[in-house]
Amino acid sequence: MLEQFKVKEEDAIRVPEAGLRETVTAFFVRMGVPAEDAALAADVLVLADLRGVETHGVSNTPRDYLTGYSEGEINPRPDWRIVRESPATATIDCDAGIGLVIAPKAMEIAIAKAEKVGLGMVTMRNGRHLGMAAYHAMMALEHDMIGMCMTSTPASMVPTFGAEPRLGTNPIAVAAPAGKEPPFIFDAASTAVAGNKLLLARRLGTNILPGWLADENGTPIMEEFPAPEPSFRGAQTTFMLPVGGTRELGSHKGYGWASIVEVLGGILTGGGYGMNPGRPNFGHSVAAYKIDAFMDVADFKRTMDEWLETLRTTKPAPGHDRVFYPGLPEAEDEADRRANGIPLHPEVVEWFRDVCAELEIPFKLTDS
Amino acid sequence: MLEQFKVKEEDAIRVPEAGLRETVTAFFVRMGVPAEDAALAADVLVLADLRGVETHGVSNTPRDYLTGYSEGEINPRPDWRIVRESPATATIDCDAGIGLVIAPKAMEIAIAKAEKVGLGMVTMRNGRHLGMAAYHAMMALEHDMIGMCMTSTPASMVPTFGAEPRLGTNPIAVAAPAGKEPPFIFDAASTAVAGNKLLLARRLGTNILPGWLADENGTPIMEEFPAPEPSFRGAQTTFMLPVGGTRELGSHKGYGWASIVEVLGGILTGGGYGMNPGRPNFGHSVAAYKIDAFMDVADFKRTMDEWLETLRTTKPAPGHDRVFYPGLPEAEDEADRRANGIPLHPEVVEWFRDVCAELEIPFKLTDS
Repeated sequence: MLEQFKVKEEDAIRVPEAGLRETVTAFFVRMGVPAEDAALAADVLVLADLRGVETHGVSNTPRDYLTGYSEGEINPRPDWRIVRESPATATIDCDAGIGLVIAPKAMEIAIAKAEKVGLGMVTMRNGRHLGMAAYHAMMALEHDMIGMCMTSTPASMVPTFGAEPRLGTNPIAVAAPAGKEPPFIFDAASTAVAGNKLLLARRLGTNILPGWLADENGTPIMEEFPAPEPSFRGAQTTFMLPVGGTRELGSHKGYGWASIVEVLGGILTGGGYGMNPGRPNFGHSVAAYKIDAFMDVADFKRTMDEWLETLRTTKPAPGHDRVFYPGLPEAEDEADRRANGIPLHPEVVEWFRDVCAELEIPFKLTDS
Repeated sequence: MLEQFKVKEEDAIRVPEAGLRETVTAFFVRMGVPAEDAALAADVLVLADLRGVETHGVSNTPRDYLTGYSEGEINPRPDWRIVRESPATATIDCDAGIGLVIAPKAMEIAIAKAEKVGLGMVTMRNGRHLGMAAYHAMMALEHDMIGMCMTSTPASMVPTFGAEPRLGTNPIAVAAPAGKEPPFIFDAASTAVAGNKLLLARRLGTNILPGWLADENGTPIMEEFPAPEPSFRGAQTTFMLPVGGTRELGSHKGYGWASIVEVLGGILTGGGYGMNPGRPNFGHSVAAYKIDAFMDVADFKRTMDEWLETLRTTKPAPGHDRVFYPGLPEAEDEADRRANGIPLHPEVVEWFRDVCAELEIPFKLTDS
């Protein structure tokens, strides 16, 4: 994540992982989620914060979940089921259950199928938010598999040359194991920035950068400006742009990647696509690739180590200290945060304090 | 493709599809390729030109193939074979055979596997150029499947913040069928521009745009400048940038997508990765997703039609007439070119005239 989007160390309150996990689990239980599922949902959110993926951790999404559960939009005890199946595939109807809980179960199914036939892929319709997509992809790692996760979200992005939102932020995550190096873990939206980063920018008082948003007519805004009010999402005075920003810089590629997610993670679930007004929001897709079906696992990991090491030892361009590979900064954040606690913005800690009081659940984020 | 990269109609010589196909087939036969394989290779190249994908058609690549066959770098009669296999997967050693011929055969294997178990994926090591990746992905369409193709190419792209080339242009192609609408067909490099577009820019006298290339120190060049000499590739006075151009505009996402291709289309072939100096160049990966394994095919196509129609009827931003979806402009080019011939730059026609004379094969591009 760009440094300016991280909560500044001097502003942050370091919160212990265990206490945060306990509080978030209690939150989901209070929403009516069974205890085991609540712990799983908390695990997805806390791992995001441990890995420095603050956009998908406890600071943004529980507010939305609270609304979703309260309004009956998210089903805390879904009767999710497989509606179609083949040796390598399955399609799940999520019954409006949260993706934080159902996507890991779907990934387990994909992994079991890949174990048997080499590949496994499970699509999910009628789903709800699945948190950090990388969580689900990463489940493949301990099985010596490559994992993938895509999610088709409600429309917020204008297509190249367009003036109406037509595609979601539509992230893709891929995780591949290595030997000694931290694993390759890529997870990114197909928009120039993740949707939650706009909220984060507002909280941190950061500017929106050129090429991130289009104005109300669909024209890319190519200068910096202060983050808009949260209502912009509804009022649509700005729209998100695909990665690339403008056609000349390759926005048709960001648009294309978002479209791939729409096909494999939206339409192929049987639940429609993001901009379909009738669609219950979010389609998901997870997949597992068994390495041993293609080549020796030890060879694969040895080659991954060699490749990743070469990437991270690339000579840096002027003004930069290091070159990263996807998953490396997150692994470093994880090591630090597991040891020293998770830095949260004071506003987030206060939100939890208020919510815990209101919901009558224990607040374990700080000692006070 | 950006309009400035198309050969201008007033400069172009319209060449008949049949004559071009015949000439290109004869060219491959003259290289030592068996007749049936030669016709297949010609089909891949000519379809690129029919669909307006001039970067991957007859105007650029046969020059490289001529060198490759002449120097023994490409094997005209490879003994390619499956080296590992599972119900959903296979790994092929290409024996230095050209991807134009082997990738379609691999895709047939993937399709047959998907027919049986729902998914099929085939990786190829020790491969050579496979032309337009979309060709192979599109083979899935007539089987009511979604197709994918990736290819890991020699290093030419600097990673975000890096000053040394570490990844190839690494394109991804995905094709998904529709009902009445032309199918969804996305095919794009993970670099800001396709490698061959730089050669095309030089031929057409077009400028390189900001965010496409980095200077010799790895710093993104953010102003326009004339296309460099072809030797730039070797001299490395500039490097290709990932889609996004700069970190702020999302170059880490282009870098990430290129890396996904490197994992699934490079390392997972068992043949190493693009920047590996010891790797015989090009790893490929093709996959097929059987729609009926996930949902009803008729429903899928109806939803695709609805989605694609909504995309192409999106209100355009000021200064633009229309919004496209991936595969739509190519379908329009194909209809025109099948009827009216393929527009080639005179320089390309002359190259074929010379080569046909030299190789003593019939020149069927024009009547004269």
